[in-house]
Amino acid sequence: MEKLEMKKKMPIVKYKEGALHETEDDIVTEYPLTIYVNEEEFATMVCTPADLEEMVVGFLASEGVVRFRKDIVKLEIDEEKGFAYVTLTNKEVLDQQTFSKRFIGSCCGKSRQFYFQNDVKTAKTSMVDKKITAASCIRLMREMQEASHVFKGTGGVHNAAICSEEGMILSRTDIGRHNALDKLYGHCLLNQIPVRDKVLVFSGRISSEVLTKAAKIGVGIVLSKSAPTDLAIKLAEDLNITAVGFIRGESFNVYSHPSRIVLE
Amino acid sequence: MEKLEMKKKMPIVKYKEGALHETEDDIVTEYPLTIYVNEEEFATMVCTPADLEEMVVGFLASEGVVRFRKDIVKLEIDEEKGFAYVTLTNKEVLDQQTFSKRFIGSCCGKSRQFYFQNDVKTAKTSMVDKKITAASCIRLMREMQEASHVFKGTGGVHNAAICSEEGMILSRTDIGRHNALDKLYGHCLLNQIPVRDKVLVFSGRISSEVLTKAAKIGVGIVLSKSAPTDLAIKLAEDLNITAVGFIRGESFNVYSHPSRIVLE
Repeated sequence: MEKLEMKKKMPIVKYKEGALHETEDDIVTEYPLTIYVNEEEFATMVCTPADLEEMVVGFLASEGVVRFRKDIVKLEIDEEKGFAYVTLTNKEVLDQQTFSKRFIGSCCGKSRQFYFQNDVKTAKTSMVDKKITAASCIRLMREMQEASHVFKGTGGVHNAAICSEEGMILSRTDIGRHNALDKLYGHCLLNQIPVRDKVLVFSGRISSEVLTKAAKIGVGIVLSKSAPTDLAIKLAEDLNITAVGFIRGESFNVYSHPSRIVLE
Repeated sequence: MEKLEMKKKMPIVKYKEGALHETEDDIVTEYPLTIYVNEEEFATMVCTPADLEEMVVGFLASEGVVRFRKDIVKLEIDEEKGFAYVTLTNKEVLDQQTFSKRFIGSCCGKSRQFYFQNDVKTAKTSMVDKKITAASCIRLMREMQEASHVFKGTGGVHNAAICSEEGMILSRTDIGRHNALDKLYGHCLLNQIPVRDKVLVFSGRISSEVLTKAAKIGVGIVLSKSAPTDLAIKLAEDLNITAVGFIRGESFNVYSHPSRIVLE
């Protein structure tokens, strides 16, 4: 089959300098993937078609369905039809009371129901007090944004990266904010990369759902280009996570646990 | 009870000109609202706490649960506890096969399942060929963004507006892209404002879900500050909607049905 493309050329009409003219432009691809777990339909994600295995694993981990790599017996993806088939060690994991069939939009998170029932199990309070300099916060955000080729071409995606203070370890891209995070999470689980002392760099807003996902991934510091919500700040306080936002130019804001951000 | 606030002052640490200092900043509020329909839990929306009745009505209309104002017998909102109670004329409307209890994240749309079963019923193909000038596209986007006080203070919200070529008719703000659209939709339904010849102006990306929602609202032109996806462009082609993106400075791109955009 044809390789799935993250973006494609499409014809457009451009208005510029007072005139309309036909041209073409790079458009980001939106790809629906339906996940079956133990032969039952579990969720449909709308995503950027790359790193799909990682996304599925990270998503199932976020949902509390898997915790370790060994929880997954088999994971097959039918790229052409848009299906992922996951077989878990534990056949009893899908309690229909907890996990009703559900759609995960291109930027949607978890159920409130889920929050109460499962987030408590999987969202980790950060126990690491590793610090980072203010200059590194600015440098890491710039490094991630500059590395995103899809973003440069289309402007239509979110980027997320796991970094140490020295630089970016891995970055992922998706039209969905949560998918980009799930791809990182899945990669770290599949490759057993420790993240407790790492930094999560993110192009999107810090909502309560994003903060909860960062806690599940297990980082102590979240750097965002954008704004947080009040609920996200409260969660960050509770989970001992340093939330940094509005990293633009040479300035930013620290919203919680500022002791991790130092001048040098 | 206390009036719900769309934003609040919170303490932050600001990094600027090489120094860290304590200050405070406006933070956007994230408010969970759980909707009961005919005494059954239907969905939880995470939103900006303003125009909640409109949002609930618009959301239920988007989901195909209501079509007209008269379909709703009663709508009560308990702002303090975060519950909305809706009584519908039709008691049989909630088929559990179609509408399982579900969470609507701050930027989440509909289920794929729903797309197949209900979008076909409610997404309207535009039948109006009213044109708009390129200069108006730029002016309407600027007008909407300048009018948003919450955005100016916090940077954390999306804006959506229904406009005629002459100017903005109404605008709504929310941390969730879909909520902002649902608030517009709800207002138009409750006040029986005809929208077929109007323009939808939107601060966010045009995903397939956003385009579908625009079609349900019933407009023929969608103006966005941001990028569309390939799937959204295909839907816009099919539904006879003119999708305009990347309205920035004095230029923009037209992705579908460009005949509605004219020079003068």
